[in-house]
Amino acid sequence: MAKVKIAVIPGDGIGKEVIPEGIRALEAAGRKFGVEYEWTEFDWSCETYHKTGRMMPEDGIEQLKQFDAIYLGAVGYPGVPDHISLWGLLLPIRREFEQYVNLRPVRLFEGVPCPLAGKKPGDIDFYVVRENVEGEYSSVGGIQYEGTEHEVVSQQAIFTRRGTDRILRYAFDLAQSRPKKHLSSATKSNGIYHSMPWWDSRVAEMAKEYPEINVDQYHIDILTANFVRMPEHFDVVVGSNLFGDILSDLGPGCTGTIAIAPSANINPEKNFPSMFEPVHGSAPDIAGKGIANPLGTIWAGAMMMQHLGYDNIHDSLMEAMETVLREAKALTGDMGGSATTIELGKAVEEAI
Amino acid sequence: MAKVKIAVIPGDGIGKEVIPEGIRALEAAGRKFGVEYEWTEFDWSCETYHKTGRMMPEDGIEQLKQFDAIYLGAVGYPGVPDHISLWGLLLPIRREFEQYVNLRPVRLFEGVPCPLAGKKPGDIDFYVVRENVEGEYSSVGGIQYEGTEHEVVSQQAIFTRRGTDRILRYAFDLAQSRPKKHLSSATKSNGIYHSMPWWDSRVAEMAKEYPEINVDQYHIDILTANFVRMPEHFDVVVGSNLFGDILSDLGPGCTGTIAIAPSANINPEKNFPSMFEPVHGSAPDIAGKGIANPLGTIWAGAMMMQHLGYDNIHDSLMEAMETVLREAKALTGDMGGSATTIELGKAVEEAI
Ligand SMILES: CC(C)[C@H](C(=O)O)[C@@H](O)C(=O)O
Ligand SMILES: CC(C)[C@H](C(=O)O)[C@@H](O)C(=O)O
Repeated sequence: MAKVKIAVIPGDGIGKEVIPEGIRALEAAGRKFGVEYEWTEFDWSCETYHKTGRMMPEDGIEQLKQFDAIYLGAVGYPGVPDHISLWGLLLPIRREFEQYVNLRPVRLFEGVPCPLAGKKPGDIDFYVVRENVEGEYSSVGGIQYEGTEHEVVSQQAIFTRRGTDRILRYAFDLAQSRPKKHLSSATKSNGIYHSMPWWDSRVAEMAKEYPEINVDQYHIDILTANFVRMPEHFDVVVGSNLFGDILSDLGPGCTGTIAIAPSANINPEKNFPSMFEPVHGSAPDIAGKGIANPLGTIWAGAMMMQHLGYDNIHDSLMEAMETVLREAKALTGDMGGSATTIELGKAVEEAI
Repeated sequence: MAKVKIAVIPGDGIGKEVIPEGIRALEAAGRKFGVEYEWTEFDWSCETYHKTGRMMPEDGIEQLKQFDAIYLGAVGYPGVPDHISLWGLLLPIRREFEQYVNLRPVRLFEGVPCPLAGKKPGDIDFYVVRENVEGEYSSVGGIQYEGTEHEVVSQQAIFTRRGTDRILRYAFDLAQSRPKKHLSSATKSNGIYHSMPWWDSRVAEMAKEYPEINVDQYHIDILTANFVRMPEHFDVVVGSNLFGDILSDLGPGCTGTIAIAPSANINPEKNFPSMFEPVHGSAPDIAGKGIANPLGTIWAGAMMMQHLGYDNIHDSLMEAMETVLREAKALTGDMGGSATTIELGKAVEEAI
């Protein structure tokens, strides 16, 4: 029997509530297709930070190396400043394991009320491909004259050709594999003087290698408006770390709930484990109530199994999710229902 | 008779088509209330760049100093790289004249089809207050190993306490003046290590001085999703140069058309002329067709007159705009009608 070794980091807030439902769904599909899991749980979180002064142990990255993949809930909780918790756990994992692709599907499902007028399932179906390890997410910089009225803060964004080209390559290849063969690049080259015109030039350069792909580019401001005005237009959208982050919350927001959206942090070369998580965060406002939507986590689990070569498990999870949404019997509050996290999780399990 | 001296820069693309309609509306209201205008037109544009190698003459800023205000159409056109055209005209005006406030109202009008399901006029009515001269829009940085596979691009964002506090002050004062007294700050302090946690601390510091104001903050990713999911929530939203730019396209996008949205680049101290423009750009795809929506420009004109102390002209323009929209007889294509730019402009004139 095939066996996959997964590191599980439930993390903070609703992370701890949705991960068990992800595991439930994966176990169910595993039973069906003869795949066994070895789950190893790590309690790395803001709670751990309070106790130990660290989000994860010093050798945390080392410990994770032996796993086939990492399954993460959410990181961040009031009481620990966000930049401390995130730079202490989520962001170093993305970086150290060169998970430079952040792949985030955006899809409107039957059964989920859409906030955009007149859209139906099928109208919204695209991928955001986000650069995941460099760019605007940077700890380079600092504060001069700190604490005085003369404070000056310098925040650098660092883009490299290697880092940019490899994410563009991934996005172009993905677009090439899809029927529409359409790639949209997010930019802001009219305002951001160095990095963005350069980004555009890398896109233009690579476009030459993919003559079949229809490439367009939008400044990030109008691009966000276009997500609302014409989501049908998009197929594969590639963006820097920050722009991809924004677009991959806004996109799912346009499909009714960001709680459904998954995030695959991929090291395509498979030199290191990849990490799979829901897009939503720890959601302190609803944490502990048992009402969080586990579908983002379940979908992330499906992507994890696809990455590991188990397409059958991926497909089975996706079908189950679609069935449960369509039947709309066990929807959580964010989707207009009143089911609990566990009820929705169990509904998916049954559908599998 | 009162007389106002306005510098007019139609600029590029549809800028040249919408500005005459703005002037038409302002003239009509001026006749009604006894205000005369002296319009001085400048042909600074990408066309000028092609002829002279500059977007504006070397003493361009100096020439503008003598005016009460600047009325601008749009800047940027294919053939001149965006960062060249914008850093050669729009951005230096904002900077040299310390127009550090970019005020952008977002409002859903009766008569304009809304892309969000189930929203009615009144549901969406807030301001984006955008920092307008520093932050992520920066020419500080450069490229190392340029043109080789080792290229590294460093792009700095510079935030100063003076620059941040003065825009926050403006936003807090605006929130204080409104019934809801609600301020939302756009941040990304979980990912952007230096500038954004510091931005949050400045917001927290100033909030102490405004105990009546209900302050919240959202990371920019979820904030964009919330514009779609719960636009009613917002009253005054304050953001950095980049975040404000994004939100002030997305917000109007959620109200049906960004072509209606105005942008006031304000120097609150009135040491220098302020500048008023529509949010939309030069729109090369529809330029020359005479179908651009002039309402953003007309609304910008209204804001200009308010800034100069003519509330009566502002109110009269706004009422005329509302009437024309409500009657929906002369709407341009972006609002679902088939009127030309001039027809809509004349309809507003008549309504005045
Ligand atoms: C043209 C561009 C530089 C400008 C900006 O980003 O400031 C525009 O998008 C705006 O919002 O006024
Ligand atoms: C928590 C935060 C640092 C993270 C990010 O911005 O990358 C999150 O928003 C995400 O999108 O995964």
